[in-house]
Amino acid sequence: MRILVQKFGGTSVASPQLRERVLHHIKLALAEGYRLVVVVSAMGRKGDPYATDTLLELARQYGDHLSPREKDLLMSCGEIISATTLSSLLSRHEIDNCVLTGGQAGIITNGKHTNAQIVTINPKRVLRQLEKGKVVIVTGFQGQTTDGEITTLGRGGSDTSATALGVALRAEYVDIFTDVEGIMTADPRIVEDAIPLDRVTYTEMCNLAFQGAKVIHPRAVEIAMQTNVPIRVRSTMSDHPGTLVTNLAEAEHLAGELRDSLITGITQMPNVTQIKVPAKQGQFDIQLKVFKAMAENGISVDFISVNPSGIAYTVYDELAERAEKILLELDLEPELNRNCAKVSTVGAGIAGVPGVMAKIVEALTEEDIQILQSADSHTTIWVLVRGTDMVRAVRALHRKFELHRLKYS
Amino acid sequence: MRILVQKFGGTSVASPQLRERVLHHIKLALAEGYRLVVVVSAMGRKGDPYATDTLLELARQYGDHLSPREKDLLMSCGEIISATTLSSLLSRHEIDNCVLTGGQAGIITNGKHTNAQIVTINPKRVLRQLEKGKVVIVTGFQGQTTDGEITTLGRGGSDTSATALGVALRAEYVDIFTDVEGIMTADPRIVEDAIPLDRVTYTEMCNLAFQGAKVIHPRAVEIAMQTNVPIRVRSTMSDHPGTLVTNLAEAEHLAGELRDSLITGITQMPNVTQIKVPAKQGQFDIQLKVFKAMAENGISVDFISVNPSGIAYTVYDELAERAEKILLELDLEPELNRNCAKVSTVGAGIAGVPGVMAKIVEALTEEDIQILQSADSHTTIWVLVRGTDMVRAVRALHRKFELHRLKYS
Repeated sequence: MRILVQKFGGTSVASPQLRERVLHHIKLALAEGYRLVVVVSAMGRKGDPYATDTLLELARQYGDHLSPREKDLLMSCGEIISATTLSSLLSRHEIDNCVLTGGQAGIITNGKHTNAQIVTINPKRVLRQLEKGKVVIVTGFQGQTTDGEITTLGRGGSDTSATALGVALRAEYVDIFTDVEGIMTADPRIVEDAIPLDRVTYTEMCNLAFQGAKVIHPRAVEIAMQTNVPIRVRSTMSDHPGTLVTNLAEAEHLAGELRDSLITGITQMPNVTQIKVPAKQGQFDIQLKVFKAMAENGISVDFISVNPSGIAYTVYDELAERAEKILLELDLEPELNRNCAKVSTVGAGIAGVPGVMAKIVEALTEEDIQILQSADSHTTIWVLVRGTDMVRAVRALHRKFELHRLKYS
Repeated sequence: MRILVQKFGGTSVASPQLRERVLHHIKLALAEGYRLVVVVSAMGRKGDPYATDTLLELARQYGDHLSPREKDLLMSCGEIISATTLSSLLSRHEIDNCVLTGGQAGIITNGKHTNAQIVTINPKRVLRQLEKGKVVIVTGFQGQTTDGEITTLGRGGSDTSATALGVALRAEYVDIFTDVEGIMTADPRIVEDAIPLDRVTYTEMCNLAFQGAKVIHPRAVEIAMQTNVPIRVRSTMSDHPGTLVTNLAEAEHLAGELRDSLITGITQMPNVTQIKVPAKQGQFDIQLKVFKAMAENGISVDFISVNPSGIAYTVYDELAERAEKILLELDLEPELNRNCAKVSTVGAGIAGVPGVMAKIVEALTEEDIQILQSADSHTTIWVLVRGTDMVRAVRALHRKFELHRLKYS
C-alpha cells in the first residue's frame, strides 16, 4: 500500500474555490495510485467564523478565563468543521471517505493542554480505513490523552499531525500544501529573483523556518527528520512539485554531484534589539546574573555572545524596555541597539567549507553594511545588522551566492 | 449531595444578555446549595453562525452528501462551542466549572447516527467533578458509542440528555429552561388569558408536547416518567418557578384534593387533511390495503377511525396529494378534506369521568363548529375541525373549562 499524507492549512481550505483545488490535488494523488490521508486545519484566519482564533474570541469576550482544557475542546471544533465540510465535497464527487478526529486517528498526546506533545501514534484505525479504499480525512492540530481528553498541539500543530501520521504510516511523502510555491531562496517580497528550491535538507528547512520562512512548523520538520520521511512543500494553487525536504546524507550526496551552490537560502528576522552588557571590574558572575534574571522574567534571549569584556544578546524589540529595566535594577550598564535584524545564510554543506564567511563579509562590506554581531552553526551563518540595512543585506547575499541560478541539474 | 440538572436551550444561550440570565439561574441554584449539572444546546437558531442548522448548511453547500457519522461529528461542535463559551463566563465569575462532552459525561448511545438512542449512562465522571464542587457543563444533544464514535440524539436531544442525566444522577429536579413561563393552558397567541400551569403529569405533558406545545421533547418526558424524576419547565427570563411535571399518582391525588378542573390544557395542530375511504361492496381488505400502501410510501397516518362503511384518517396537508394518488391507483374513491386541525383537550383525570365529551360538544356547538371526527385516550380527547374553525374552537374549549382560573390551591 503506497500511502501519501497531504496537509492543507487554513488558508488552503478557506473558500469554495480553494477547496476545489484541494479536491484537484486529492484526485491527482488517487489517480497516481496512492492511499490517501488528508490532514486539514481550521478554515481561514481570524475573522472567518470557524477559524481557531475566531472561536477563541468567543470565549475571550469574557476575558481570558477559559481554562486550557476547555480551550482545547473549543479549538478542536475548528478542524472538525473544516474536515466535515471537505468530507461533504468528496462524497459529492463520489470519493469514498471518512473523517477521524485526532484521537480517533490514534494521535495520543500528553496532557499539556493547548500545547500538547504527541506521545505515540496508533495508526491501526487509519490503516483499516485506507485498506477499505477510503480517503481518511484527519482533523489536524489535535490529539487525545489516554484518558480521552481532547488536546491541541499548539501553533503549527497540523504540520505536526501530518508528519507524525506520515511517520507512523510509513508514508511515501508528506505533502504540506501552502500558499507559496515551495521553500524560496529568499523572501520574494525582498528579493525579486528569489526562486523556489527543488530540495533542501531537514536542517536547512528548520533553520529557514525558524528564521522566518514560516511555511512549515519546525517541530514537524524535526519529527520527519528523525525518521527520514520526505516532506514536499507545495502550493495549493499550482501543480508544481514544490520543494522536497530530505535528509542530510542525501543532500550531501547531491551537494557533491548536482548542486551549484553550498547555500540554499537567505532569511531574515527583523525587530530585535541587541543588548550589550560590559563587565565591570571584578564582576565575574555577570553572565549567570543576567541570563537568570531574563529567564525569571520570561524574556527569551537569542544570539548570545560571551567574552571577557562583557556579554551581548538579542531580545524582541517589544521586550527591550523590560529587559533594560531589569538590568538597571541589577546595577548593570546595558547598551541597547534597538531595531536590528538577524540575517541568516543557510546551507547544509557549509560546515567546514572555507570562504563562506569571507563571502558574506565581502557582500555586506560592498554595501557598507556593518555587521554588529555574528554566529554560526554547521548549517547556518547568522549576522546581526541594523534594521535599516536588512533588505539590502538579504539582497546582497542572495546576489553574492547567485541563488537566483540555484538549480539541481 | 443534592443534585440539580439545568438545561438551557439554543434560544437561552444565543446572546450575551441571555447568557447573563443563565449565569443568574446558576448562581441561584448554587446559593440554594445544589451541586449543579448544566446541559446546553448549540447557540441560537438557523442564521446564527454556531447553530446546529448553520453548521449543517456548511456541509450542504455540496448537496446532502455528508454521511450521518460525519454529520454527527460536525453537529457536535455546536454544543461544544456553546458550552465552552458558558464555561468562560462562569470562570470569569470565579465559579469553578468544567465542560464534559456527551461521551465524557458517560452518555453511551447506540450507533444510529443523527438519531441515536441512549443505551446507558455512566455518571461516575460527572459525580467526581460534582464532588469537587465544580459546576459540570455538559454538551447536550450528543453521546458516544462504546467504540468512541460521536453520536447525536436527534431533535430535542438536549432535553433527553438533561433528563437522562437527571435520572442517572438521582437529581432532585431537572429544570428545562425555555422561552415560555411554563406549560400553558393553551397557546397564548390564540388564547389571551391562557395561564402557565403549576403542575401537570408526565402523560399530560407528553400529550401537550406532541400536540404542539413544543417546550420539551416527548422522549425526554418519557425517560423522566419511567423513573419519576420531577421536571420543571421554566423561563430563562424570569424567576417564576414554572410548571412542575410529576407522576400520575401524585396528580390524581392532587386532582381529588386540590384541582379545580380535570382539564389542564387545550392544544392544536393545524394543517392536516382528513381522508375518508368508503368501503365498496365486497371490499373486506380495504383497511389492510390502505394502511400498507401508506406505510410503504412513508406517509404517516393519524387519527384513524375504522367502521363497516369505510375508514377515515388524517395526514399532513403536504402529503395529501401523494396519498390521494396512491389511493386512486388502488382503485379506491378517497374523499379529501384539506386544511383541517386537530384540537386536543388534555387532562390526567378525564378517563371515565362522565360529561367531559358532552362539555366539549356543547362548547363547539355553541360556536357552530362542526366536529369532523373525534378520538380519545385516558388523558386526551381529540376533535378534528376545519382549519378555519381552529382558533375559535381552542378559545371556546379554554373558556368552557374555565382554564384561565386553573390553579392549585
